[in-house]
Amino acid sequence: MLQGLMQDRPLLISSLIEHAARFHSQAEIVSRTCEGPMHRCTYADIGRRAKRVANALSGLGVATGDRIATLAWNGYRHMELYYGVSGMGAVLHTINPRLFPEQVEYIVRHAEDRFVFFDLSFVPLIEKLAQAATGVRAFVLMTDRAHLPECDIPGLLCYEDLLAAASDEYEWPQFDEHTASSLCYTSGTTGNPKGVLYSHRSSVLHSWAACAADGLGIGAAETLLLVVPMFHVNAWGMPYAGAMSGARLVMPGPALDGRSVYELLRAEKVTLALGVPTVWLMLLQHVEASGLRPKEELCLRRVVIGGSSAPRAMSECFETQFGAFVVHAWGMTEMSPVGTVCNLLPKHQGYTLEQRLTVQEKQGRAIYGVEMKVVDDDGRRLPHDGRTAGHLLVRGPWITSGYYREAGQDLLDADGFFDTGDVATIDADGYMQITDRAKDVIKSGGEWISSITLENAAIAHPAVAEAAVIAAAHDKWQERPLLIIVRKPGQTLTRDEMLQFLQGKVANWWIPDDVAFVHELPHTATGKLHKLRLREMFRDYRLPGG
Amino acid sequence: MLQGLMQDRPLLISSLIEHAARFHSQAEIVSRTCEGPMHRCTYADIGRRAKRVANALSGLGVATGDRIATLAWNGYRHMELYYGVSGMGAVLHTINPRLFPEQVEYIVRHAEDRFVFFDLSFVPLIEKLAQAATGVRAFVLMTDRAHLPECDIPGLLCYEDLLAAASDEYEWPQFDEHTASSLCYTSGTTGNPKGVLYSHRSSVLHSWAACAADGLGIGAAETLLLVVPMFHVNAWGMPYAGAMSGARLVMPGPALDGRSVYELLRAEKVTLALGVPTVWLMLLQHVEASGLRPKEELCLRRVVIGGSSAPRAMSECFETQFGAFVVHAWGMTEMSPVGTVCNLLPKHQGYTLEQRLTVQEKQGRAIYGVEMKVVDDDGRRLPHDGRTAGHLLVRGPWITSGYYREAGQDLLDADGFFDTGDVATIDADGYMQITDRAKDVIKSGGEWISSITLENAAIAHPAVAEAAVIAAAHDKWQERPLLIIVRKPGQTLTRDEMLQFLQGKVANWWIPDDVAFVHELPHTATGKLHKLRLREMFRDYRLPGG
Repeated sequence: MLQGLMQDRPLLISSLIEHAARFHSQAEIVSRTCEGPMHRCTYADIGRRAKRVANALSGLGVATGDRIATLAWNGYRHMELYYGVSGMGAVLHTINPRLFPEQVEYIVRHAEDRFVFFDLSFVPLIEKLAQAATGVRAFVLMTDRAHLPECDIPGLLCYEDLLAAASDEYEWPQFDEHTASSLCYTSGTTGNPKGVLYSHRSSVLHSWAACAADGLGIGAAETLLLVVPMFHVNAWGMPYAGAMSGARLVMPGPALDGRSVYELLRAEKVTLALGVPTVWLMLLQHVEASGLRPKEELCLRRVVIGGSSAPRAMSECFETQFGAFVVHAWGMTEMSPVGTVCNLLPKHQGYTLEQRLTVQEKQGRAIYGVEMKVVDDDGRRLPHDGRTAGHLLVRGPWITSGYYREAGQDLLDADGFFDTGDVATIDADGYMQITDRAKDVIKSGGEWISSITLENAAIAHPAVAEAAVIAAAHDKWQERPLLIIVRKPGQTLTRDEMLQFLQGKVANWWIPDDVAFVHELPHTATGKLHKLRLREMFRDYRLPGG
Repeated sequence: MLQGLMQDRPLLISSLIEHAARFHSQAEIVSRTCEGPMHRCTYADIGRRAKRVANALSGLGVATGDRIATLAWNGYRHMELYYGVSGMGAVLHTINPRLFPEQVEYIVRHAEDRFVFFDLSFVPLIEKLAQAATGVRAFVLMTDRAHLPECDIPGLLCYEDLLAAASDEYEWPQFDEHTASSLCYTSGTTGNPKGVLYSHRSSVLHSWAACAADGLGIGAAETLLLVVPMFHVNAWGMPYAGAMSGARLVMPGPALDGRSVYELLRAEKVTLALGVPTVWLMLLQHVEASGLRPKEELCLRRVVIGGSSAPRAMSECFETQFGAFVVHAWGMTEMSPVGTVCNLLPKHQGYTLEQRLTVQEKQGRAIYGVEMKVVDDDGRRLPHDGRTAGHLLVRGPWITSGYYREAGQDLLDADGFFDTGDVATIDADGYMQITDRAKDVIKSGGEWISSITLENAAIAHPAVAEAAVIAAAHDKWQERPLLIIVRKPGQTLTRDEMLQFLQGKVANWWIPDDVAFVHELPHTATGKLHKLRLREMFRDYRLPGG
């Protein structure tokens, strides 16, 4: 083949911070710290300190390819590690501190982490881990000497001491863009966590997609609140996209309660906030309980919601009370994570709010770089008609081909597509809607009932705080839906009222056979409904007439 | 190095049209045709017909790497060739039909073009070329049988006949993303034209940069008018960025006069138009002469101006009369072409129009992917202080490392930077401003005077239609500026009035020593001032007192 004559520059993560430090040097990174006070610095500062991180790690004997773990909230030091570790050619391994301690220990051993950097909040967790994870050469507490606590961690290092002793003169090495840059384990509901190993190339390409006008439209005019944690799929890539575009970043640290998040939105004039529904629920409850007037007090224009489905009522609330447009997005850890984004098309311009919210309930259109298909059980492509649900498969340069150190895996189909485990429809305009997880779908007499559709319909009732639908065994229909409800405080919703409410909102034969009321629902470490545990809880449940 | 586990998908131009055909199938491509009528089709149509192009070319024996030339205006058939030719692994060679016939002949021979596709407008040009360019296997007229003219082109083929005979079943081949995709010759003012050979990788990466919110922000909600020709650096990459984002495209065909362009803006509700200042000048003159009310009649929100410097008065006029923001951009054929874009930062929000226009006079900030430095004559980096002018050098994955079939070239400096030939300043916010071409700068007593700054100051006079500044020999100062003016029709501007007007607008010692009035200025084939020819015209000119 005739080769083009363009410069062969590798796409490296270090070039993102170099760009920001040079062309957006004064743009701010604002962090709520574990120590208490707010901290302000710039991309130029992050760039300089990331070079200190690289020098310090080199001094500690870290080589290219070594895994360096973090157990940390969103903050400037975590961002310095993002660039310092990956920039030098090592692998940044972000660990979800909400996992059970034995899962954290498994992950640290499986990844063979050489060093573990951690925030003050996690001293007790690390005290336990230090005894078990014998392969770790040292633990580094991400604070300064004044804040070092009394603790039982042998050979503990202090982050600010390390940086103070290192030079900020450092030339980022140039290497193959396919080199591993970071590692994130999925917290599946079955089996051990599995590691997704990102590359420099995938991280940079994903950043471009995130900055695209019809991606998440990240630009220098935005102030981003990263509610989505940096230990969860690289905070949806925002630490990279932020540097690529020079966006101002606000990092909430450990404080994700409604009051703290609202205060950050207000004080820092945030224009775009990103996070999972659970956190927004806390925010909306705080706003309601405190009688706040977000539309007048905030500059929030957009809220990106992903991780799980954005309920219609949530989108409506942000629209009417905040004046903020909800950008519904979908992806997975295995996808870096962004796959689809629900932006509107010109044809939607004349829509009423009600009509528009119906569009926004969908997870959106595939961004360029993500190929998407829905197929039946035999792998045959299904039509894009907005009705036919099938297994959702994806392909692209920021989608995984396998898991780290999992031998003998064959994750992709013959055409190289990855099975997301989701069931979805795609309409003629390309809007995809998740109707279920493949393992959660309710198979009633050979037809599929979407548990998510039922949950969304139920959550719209004003007395419902949270809703889940699982399959319960049924003699005649094999499976029938069971609706499980958490009432809002002080509410007295009954089974019949609930089922009555669903009439006309879903097909008649989808109406659940029963409703169970509980005080709380089980969630995974990343805040999603833990359906496996729910199914275990209701294993012996008998449907009326079932 | 440890490799990441992301899918190794090549970035190919065919994936752009595949994405658009699948996820933006109904988005329109509207073309004014050479035959006369308007033509409307969709990305799905372009996708299908591009496959016919690929099948037809395969049938004609075209192999991967073969160069396939076009001499064509902006239109849907040209776009089908963009995707059909590059998609199959051949090289799309877009030729500027405004070049002199002998330059076209040189380029066709140098590129060794196998087939030449051309629009009806260029029948006379091709009749001459057909005799000289003996390496061309066939010429293909981009029309249907009904419009085939009587002409003297041996073995002429008809585009629509070729496509009708070909199948639209075609699987785009997968190959190395570094494969050459397209070729564009620069029309330099000295020597023979030189070919820039783009790759699939560079074209796709450049598209992402164009779609970025702080790039050109191309999205599905936009209707783009491509005034910039598809024979000029791939219409600034818009046929690719359009498909990537699903933007609606409007193609003006051969009609670039003010009336035709205005009519397209109005009838097609264009939101974003892209082109060089010369075309906008014709548009603004038409609006003024016809007493039109663009702000009320059009939906135009942004105008991207590049190719040469956007005069302040032009930006002001678009802002006040059209309600459209001028996005000043800069690049080169050697850069695919986008290097910098002048978007505003949050700090500019409170600016008055006057203050804002001063920002917009600059060419803007480097987009991520373009590294930029200003250096002195010895290659030492100069500060980003907005004052110190130096040679502008660039580096990145869509910037050329050499010219096609030019042996023994060493275009890049030791760090891999390409010298743009421009002289520029960069300020603390990263805004770059071209102050001159290195060969046009006026060296007066060891100091540099920017010819462009003087031209911009002169063009602001209401009686001036066009202005150029060149160096004239001077006994004492070596060189002094000579201002050359084209007056607007009916205006009687004098030398002294002109020089008086410049007082206070530029440094005193920059004021030109003389003013010459001419009826027109020479331009290059791409509409830029032809300073070399201008210097020849004024070779024997003697400055008063010089």
